[in-house]
Amino acid sequence: MYLRGLLLSSEQGRESISSGDLADILGVNSSQIRKDFSYFGELGTRGVGYNIEKLSKQIKKILRLDVVQKAALVGVGNLGSVILAYPGFQVYGFEIAAAFDVNPKEVGRKVKGITVEHVSDLWKLERRKISIAIIAVPRDAAQQTADSLVKAGVRGILNFSPCYIVVPKKVKVITIDIAMDLARLPYYMPAG
Amino acid sequence: MYLRGLLLSSEQGRESISSGDLADILGVNSSQIRKDFSYFGELGTRGVGYNIEKLSKQIKKILRLDVVQKAALVGVGNLGSVILAYPGFQVYGFEIAAAFDVNPKEVGRKVKGITVEHVSDLWKLERRKISIAIIAVPRDAAQQTADSLVKAGVRGILNFSPCYIVVPKKVKVITIDIAMDLARLPYYMPAG
Repeated sequence: MYLRGLLLSSEQGRESISSGDLADILGVNSSQIRKDFSYFGELGTRGVGYNIEKLSKQIKKILRLDVVQKAALVGVGNLGSVILAYPGFQVYGFEIAAAFDVNPKEVGRKVKGITVEHVSDLWKLERRKISIAIIAVPRDAAQQTADSLVKAGVRGILNFSPCYIVVPKKVKVITIDIAMDLARLPYYMPAG
Repeated sequence: MYLRGLLLSSEQGRESISSGDLADILGVNSSQIRKDFSYFGELGTRGVGYNIEKLSKQIKKILRLDVVQKAALVGVGNLGSVILAYPGFQVYGFEIAAAFDVNPKEVGRKVKGITVEHVSDLWKLERRKISIAIIAVPRDAAQQTADSLVKAGVRGILNFSPCYIVVPKKVKVITIDIAMDLARLPYYMPAG
């Protein structure tokens, strides 16, 4: 979250930011920010704030985002197309380097510079040192896709199918459920 | 998160669930679950677990999801279309009841039973008692869209544009940044 706030500020052309301004952007307490940043030795400069580039670099290193991470996308339907077109991955050091689909009409098509491959070729990911994958297939195909990805040596999965997928402990899955994000709103909305 | 786990279990046909099984689904500690549920008086039954329907109802009430919430979607492009087709909103009690776009080609088109309206009609939301909106417009149009929504009495916004939008304190905004979710993976991935 801190990294996100810093990257947003950087895009706005800022070079430094105070804990107060960062607190406003993120909706958190500024003393919490100062406390958290002090844990990794960043104290900022009074009256100037924190150096955004330096601090971003440090947080990226902690989050292992300091090297370019190649990711594969499985499913290039509506949702997959949105993901491919999403401008934000690069700022976190990600590159979508491969795309797969089961539909023969999609296979061979070039999308955003990437030629769509058939899912039966997912096993090749291991050789290509791609260990992160994004699942954007219909719900019914999600578990099978995850199984193939795990077999291909993938160790991190971002799952957009609104379902629970089972993977070995050595694999980390993050499931995105946009309905759940929407469901967080009413609790925080003032009565009106 | 607990509600999500309960709803997933319910879809799998279960009527009750133990704290241990729920812990496995959600990747959290089962004693934490028991502690949290005990706060609102749910103790479960030894050997049977928690009644999923009863517990879901109670959490929905706490989260103010116990009444149907109408939401408006602004932007029916690629991302907006994915959102309209998303099957998961209903389980949390949401109904996308209106859709808006700036493109004359989209206005008047019927999508999933909803006739797309022009964004210049956003002010009508107040009369229709729609106080939640989803922003799925290009980045450059996000702030202006948010301003119109606030004027129309919207008090909760789910923002899919990868940018920071400024709203009055009385309005709650949740921004979805799928790149940030992807960025959480490397830290948790075991070395390989």
